[in-house]
Amino acid sequence: MARSSGGRSALSRVMQVFTAFDVDAVFLNISQLSVRSGLPLATTHRIVAEMEDFGLLERQPDKTYRLGVRLWEIACRTPGALGLREIAMPHLQSVQSRVRQHTQLGILEGQEVLFLERLSARDAVVNVTLVGGRLPLHASSSGLVLLAHADDEFQHDVFSGELFRYTEQTVQSPDALRRLLQKIRRDGFAIGNGFIHPDARGIAVPVRGVNDTIVAGLSVVVPNDDAPTLPLVRLLQGASAAITQDLLAAYTPPNDPQSAPGGRFRQLVSSSADSMEYLPTAPRPTRAGR
Amino acid sequence: MARSSGGRSALSRVMQVFTAFDVDAVFLNISQLSVRSGLPLATTHRIVAEMEDFGLLERQPDKTYRLGVRLWEIACRTPGALGLREIAMPHLQSVQSRVRQHTQLGILEGQEVLFLERLSARDAVVNVTLVGGRLPLHASSSGLVLLAHADDEFQHDVFSGELFRYTEQTVQSPDALRRLLQKIRRDGFAIGNGFIHPDARGIAVPVRGVNDTIVAGLSVVVPNDDAPTLPLVRLLQGASAAITQDLLAAYTPPNDPQSAPGGRFRQLVSSSADSMEYLPTAPRPTRAGR
Repeated sequence: MARSSGGRSALSRVMQVFTAFDVDAVFLNISQLSVRSGLPLATTHRIVAEMEDFGLLERQPDKTYRLGVRLWEIACRTPGALGLREIAMPHLQSVQSRVRQHTQLGILEGQEVLFLERLSARDAVVNVTLVGGRLPLHASSSGLVLLAHADDEFQHDVFSGELFRYTEQTVQSPDALRRLLQKIRRDGFAIGNGFIHPDARGIAVPVRGVNDTIVAGLSVVVPNDDAPTLPLVRLLQGASAAITQDLLAAYTPPNDPQSAPGGRFRQLVSSSADSMEYLPTAPRPTRAGR
Repeated sequence: MARSSGGRSALSRVMQVFTAFDVDAVFLNISQLSVRSGLPLATTHRIVAEMEDFGLLERQPDKTYRLGVRLWEIACRTPGALGLREIAMPHLQSVQSRVRQHTQLGILEGQEVLFLERLSARDAVVNVTLVGGRLPLHASSSGLVLLAHADDEFQHDVFSGELFRYTEQTVQSPDALRRLLQKIRRDGFAIGNGFIHPDARGIAVPVRGVNDTIVAGLSVVVPNDDAPTLPLVRLLQGASAAITQDLLAAYTPPNDPQSAPGGRFRQLVSSSADSMEYLPTAPRPTRAGR
């Protein structure tokens, strides 16, 4: 990429503007964008104008900017996020229709868990999980499941980082965490009673993909009361196994009899059986303008 | 942005790489990326390497690339896409639990409808709608609703473009389309019997936002049979009104008694009532590494 005299590339400046936005900072004016991105005001003006031209940013009537729908559209072609979410979605809905609290799917990103989906009932228990949001591995039940199956070096790195204390119940000492992770590996599930909020309980199981690797954590967040947890664990384990089966079918070569229908769409799309059969050959208009 | 000797900016080349990917082309190797982006191979190599550094692309074991989870994460802060989808989601789920076919939400992007969400049952009728995918306005029921409420000049532009013929039933003549749009405005809903596939019927209603503007089309795709359509129209109209109410509450100033809880999160997040109350003040770890 072309580099400015400062040695920073053009793309790095675009990334600085992107990451100036956050889940609680979705509308920003030029000054705020400049401050939050760390870019000079004139540079911010120039980059923002070009990003707006490409639809990556949208200017609002009040002269603030928000991330553009075009960015979201491009990002919808991400198999690791939208694809996994699409394949898991029918099973998340099935869990949610039984539990009627929060049902969510998270993946390991850096040293955190990134949530791809959360389904919630209006009267469900308090829960800080956001779609596209992250939580620390040691505190969330999905994160604990992912951490339990990570290698020793990765666990060591996490233990030596900030182990944020959300509540009195958050497990913070590396020794206690090591014992907890061992138990999670042995049991095949994680339960966090009040680790993030005193009123909430997280229950999570691992989701396996191709080559038996752990690709995600599937969890529910329910009230932290004396209700039995094992029925929820069994429900999650059934859904997890079903997601694995659909993932394997989506990634099996198309000429294999075990392969899911949908041709080149299989890894990004989950729709009805008839739709998946039809999609690869469906007529599509040409799109000269894009 | 810094420009190469060719006059194209660095960001425009990044966009060319982004748009090389498509819903049916999610894994591409360097040669394919070069051909599909129209960039020289050496340039493609350089840009792809930098995009990979930022997590915008991910290299697979087979040396193909896919769009990165980091891109999806950034795009999750788009109020116009994820925010609208979050606010609409409980109402989409409620429609889907009754209809058990396909329930979807689409917005106007350029001269097409872009779908933010689709919920589908496994045994639902054939349907070509994809999350993050587009359909022409004249053929999809959501698109027709959006087109019916657009101004004359916009409609004229659409009529003079390609009016792709999916089936014998697709309405193609501008005169017939004008009459259809008039009927849709009068009725308050659109019905497309076999416009995209002979077996499928689309039924859509408009969703209004702030200042009574139409912000989306809410639709179901059901079998194209002799079942009555009016109960589905009424179900969609109820859900649409509920989405509008939640949208208005999310965009009402926080100090107004009608305002939704959730503070700065309201426009991007929809969770349980307790969660929305809690989110603005919830403790969050610092994230030095990002």
